[in-house]
Amino acid sequence: MPQPDHISKLGVPDPATLDTDLRAIWQKCVEKLGFVPNVYSAYSLKPQRLRNFMAMYNEIMLAPSALSKLEREMVAVVVSSANRCYYCLVAHGAAVRQLSGDPELGEMMALNYRVAKLDPRQRAMLDFTWKLTTTPWLIDDADRDALRAVGFDEAAMFDLGETVAFFNLSNRMASATDMMPNREYHRVVRG
Amino acid sequence: MPQPDHISKLGVPDPATLDTDLRAIWQKCVEKLGFVPNVYSAYSLKPQRLRNFMAMYNEIMLAPSALSKLEREMVAVVVSSANRCYYCLVAHGAAVRQLSGDPELGEMMALNYRVAKLDPRQRAMLDFTWKLTTTPWLIDDADRDALRAVGFDEAAMFDLGETVAFFNLSNRMASATDMMPNREYHRVVRG
Amino acid sequence: MPQPDHISKLGVPDPATLDTDLRAIWQKCVEKLGFVPNVYSAYSLKPQRLRNFMAMYNEIMLAPSALSKLEREMVAVVVSSANRCYYCLVAHGAAVRQLSGDPELGEMMALNYRVAKLDPRQRAMLDFTWKLTTTPWLIDDADRDALRAVGFDEAAMFDLGETVAFFNLSNRMASATDMMPNREYHRVVRG
Amino acid sequence: MPQPDHISKLGVPDPATLDTDLRAIWQKCVEKLGFVPNVYSAYSLKPQRLRNFMAMYNEIMLAPSALSKLEREMVAVVVSSANRCYYCLVAHGAAVRQLSGDPELGEMMALNYRVAKLDPRQRAMLDFTWKLTTTPWLIDDADRDALRAVGFDEAAMFDLGETVAFFNLSNRMASATDMMPNREYHRVVRG
Amino acid sequence: MPQPDHISKLGVPDPATLDTDLRAIWQKCVEKLGFVPNVYSAYSLKPQRLRNFMAMYNEIMLAPSALSKLEREMVAVVVSSANRCYYCLVAHGAAVRQLSGDPELGEMMALNYRVAKLDPRQRAMLDFTWKLTTTPWLIDDADRDALRAVGFDEAAMFDLGETVAFFNLSNRMASATDMMPNREYHRVVRG
Amino acid sequence: MPQPDHISKLGVPDPATLDTDLRAIWQKCVEKLGFVPNVYSAYSLKPQRLRNFMAMYNEIMLAPSALSKLEREMVAVVVSSANRCYYCLVAHGAAVRQLSGDPELGEMMALNYRVAKLDPRQRAMLDFTWKLTTTPWLIDDADRDALRAVGFDEAAMFDLGETVAFFNLSNRMASATDMMPNREYHRVVRG
Repeated sequence: MPQPDHISKLGVPDPATLDTDLRAIWQKCVEKLGFVPNVYSAYSLKPQRLRNFMAMYNEIMLAPSALSKLEREMVAVVVSSANRCYYCLVAHGAAVRQLSGDPELGEMMALNYRVAKLDPRQRAMLDFTWKLTTTPWLIDDADRDALRAVGFDEAAMFDLGETVAFFNLSNRMASATDMMPNREYHRVVRG
Repeated sequence: MPQPDHISKLGVPDPATLDTDLRAIWQKCVEKLGFVPNVYSAYSLKPQRLRNFMAMYNEIMLAPSALSKLEREMVAVVVSSANRCYYCLVAHGAAVRQLSGDPELGEMMALNYRVAKLDPRQRAMLDFTWKLTTTPWLIDDADRDALRAVGFDEAAMFDLGETVAFFNLSNRMASATDMMPNREYHRVVRG
Repeated sequence: MPQPDHISKLGVPDPATLDTDLRAIWQKCVEKLGFVPNVYSAYSLKPQRLRNFMAMYNEIMLAPSALSKLEREMVAVVVSSANRCYYCLVAHGAAVRQLSGDPELGEMMALNYRVAKLDPRQRAMLDFTWKLTTTPWLIDDADRDALRAVGFDEAAMFDLGETVAFFNLSNRMASATDMMPNREYHRVVRG
Repeated sequence: MPQPDHISKLGVPDPATLDTDLRAIWQKCVEKLGFVPNVYSAYSLKPQRLRNFMAMYNEIMLAPSALSKLEREMVAVVVSSANRCYYCLVAHGAAVRQLSGDPELGEMMALNYRVAKLDPRQRAMLDFTWKLTTTPWLIDDADRDALRAVGFDEAAMFDLGETVAFFNLSNRMASATDMMPNREYHRVVRG
Repeated sequence: MPQPDHISKLGVPDPATLDTDLRAIWQKCVEKLGFVPNVYSAYSLKPQRLRNFMAMYNEIMLAPSALSKLEREMVAVVVSSANRCYYCLVAHGAAVRQLSGDPELGEMMALNYRVAKLDPRQRAMLDFTWKLTTTPWLIDDADRDALRAVGFDEAAMFDLGETVAFFNLSNRMASATDMMPNREYHRVVRG
Repeated sequence: MPQPDHISKLGVPDPATLDTDLRAIWQKCVEKLGFVPNVYSAYSLKPQRLRNFMAMYNEIMLAPSALSKLEREMVAVVVSSANRCYYCLVAHGAAVRQLSGDPELGEMMALNYRVAKLDPRQRAMLDFTWKLTTTPWLIDDADRDALRAVGFDEAAMFDLGETVAFFNLSNRMASATDMMPNREYHRVVRG
């Protein structure tokens, strides 16, 4: 049985009808990636909300941060693993494979990060990620102290916390809309 | 033992050092509310991230939406109840009391929304809110159909989903930073 | 939509039909509190069971104990928070606010006690309360040792254990009957 | 390794030092049962609390009720199964075997009540018992309606609710004190 | 109401129709135990699968192992307790009582192993058993180190892990088929 | 940081030291697959146990069954998804991709089977798989009836139940030993 070919169960507007700024972004995506990420298409149902989402996404994932780009993608995937979010696991799992050049690392982040070989800083980062995602009410000074012990200062904790927080948002948008990832992601860096 | 007087465990910059646009917002808050919401102060550690957060917040909570302002605040509180987020329960619980003029409704949303007397549309809205927050991976067509059955169309489902998603972000920022709400909220519309 | 005005979904007898001893208690409540707590009205469906409930309640909450009256109310609220019991959170949250004179402490106990500033003895007391409520089967010598380390002797552990146990009873009576708290509680000590 | 021979980890007073009324009860227990139930010994650390506990226990378990004595014991065991309470499972499991004359029924109640052959009324009674014990905050009108559909009226729901509530209390007293059941229970009606 | 008298909800073939090797085993069971364990009857629906199951069972439970036969049965019961598997709790609870001669030990394993008096090696063995059963994804080097600290070498960890794994299989066969244990088990070593 | 290159944290014997029958299997694996599956290497620590494991595996996964080979692999992956078992998700995810020729189907089974487009029979099969894996004690006649309604007869339910049961065993062997999958699996049918 062929798998779903919808982008979002809430429907997606015809890209030709979008505002100029969005159409420019669509075109840039096609040039750089070969496709428009489905999360943009799905979100374009409400153009201003898409703009806000992209602004936040770009700042958290691409602007300077105490976390490397690979680490931010690792966090994205571990949040999505806890939430079993298909869209984000596929899209950001591909990003981990691409940024690390390691076809296994993305799988480990997606399936169970505890099996990966990580330095203590990254392991603490992902343990915090899991706990803040699944039981945020249990986060305590002891958890922040565990991050400090492996080198996180206040700014780094802010960056980590916001990255975790952001993917808890985007996972839920994906689940609410049954968002399907672009098929291109599946082929990225498979070893 | 006097309760905590920190705003965020990650520290807060001196407001006098903030950029002009943020200082203008601070001033407007003081004029309208009598205080600057602590979430702004906590987030001002990273000014651009605060700007993105405010843009998204304002669009979701204040711009036109299929949900009334009161309903959006009810959703905010129910998400925060599931995540046991002290900051958001206090701040948005006050908003529910204020917008509804009903001192009990905010308490019910915060403590257990199932005891409230709600029309079927609002009950379905909050059941979806709880499920998308606590087990997003179980959201299915049946859940979207339950919303449709009480009058939600695609755009309304988008608005509801994004409101739920956003407070799953902000709850985690509050937990990551141990954010404390302004004391003024406690006094709002207590009956 | 106006909130529920029932006392118990199982119905409540006309107070005028109650036995003399209960009517005397009703009158005393009105004199001292201004109202009869709804838990008494709800329980008066079975007068002898109400008498037993009041005897146990009075002994645990008002008689000499290793816990101060405020601490007993804090325990009551934390049990009720774990069980998300609307009635007990409202009624005993008001008691925490009243006994402490601190409008925030009751909110913290109700919403997430881990954000409160507590001395080590009270924090250990509430950690035990949460664990005995949510996973009683995991209580072990290590948990009793943690209490001893902050000054609990055998009698104090008995008092703490029984207070936790009692509110696990009363939370379930409230949930079984959908008991609604008197509206007066909402206004108590709001700062 | 011989199994524990303590009665309660909080210690037990010398029975000879107890008040007359309690010593009379001790003697009656020995006459009727051949032993004093350890829950009485454990609770005698605080005599007035024991008196209240016995009053409530006797009223719920022995006085007229909409539930038969066997049904009340079945409820006791199912609550204790959900809470994995060793003391109550042993003591009340024996009571189910004795009152039913069925050596398997007590085991089924203790280990997984869903495997037992029950009439619809008893199955609904135990489903309510499990839910009110494990997730009391989810109890709703639908749950009360399910009881009504199999013949429970308001008084019967009160009796059921209070029986469930009471064993949620006594399970936690047993766990808090690591109470050990009298060995005699193990031999009762084994087939 | 008499308890279920089926062996498996999927039906059981007439033993007379079984292959010679199986009939020989049936006869040996009757000679040694007085009955054919119902798990064999239930599994005989697919004879080759029964042969594989028996081969694995015999090797794990009866062949040389780093765990004593009693310890293997204790592990079997604790796995089954976590999974609330009626069949295995009854059948292997009887085995614990028989091998230990201790009528309480089997009950403790079945109802809550944490109340039993165990040496540190056995307690660590059962803590590992519980964790590998309920949250296998959290098993980490720290868990293997805890076993090493009480004397488990690699071979012993293999034996323990496979015993836990095997009963996670057999518990699910029992639940899938609603397998009922032979009534004879209930009478074994009751003290 | 390069990912782990161990096969099992309990160590693996030199293949040259294995018995003739096992060495023959090793050779056949190399001929057919290009490598020896790490689960065999890990299990060869105890040769007789490996033989039993292979016999059971071959019968369940390769012998005639009411489930197609692809369906058996889908069940394997969904069990492993519930248990977050890295080894089995990688190895059997590859098998789903290979047998279906669909690079997405394996990812969906591994990450969240609810997003896949399935016919009602397969969806019911996987819902049963998930429930029997995560809460076997809740399996009831209603669950078997749901399977019957989509065409499962008794023999098919046996096959399904045993497949689920078997991967609950092998997931736990993999977690107990921190078993790493062969890297070859990652490249299979990626689209």
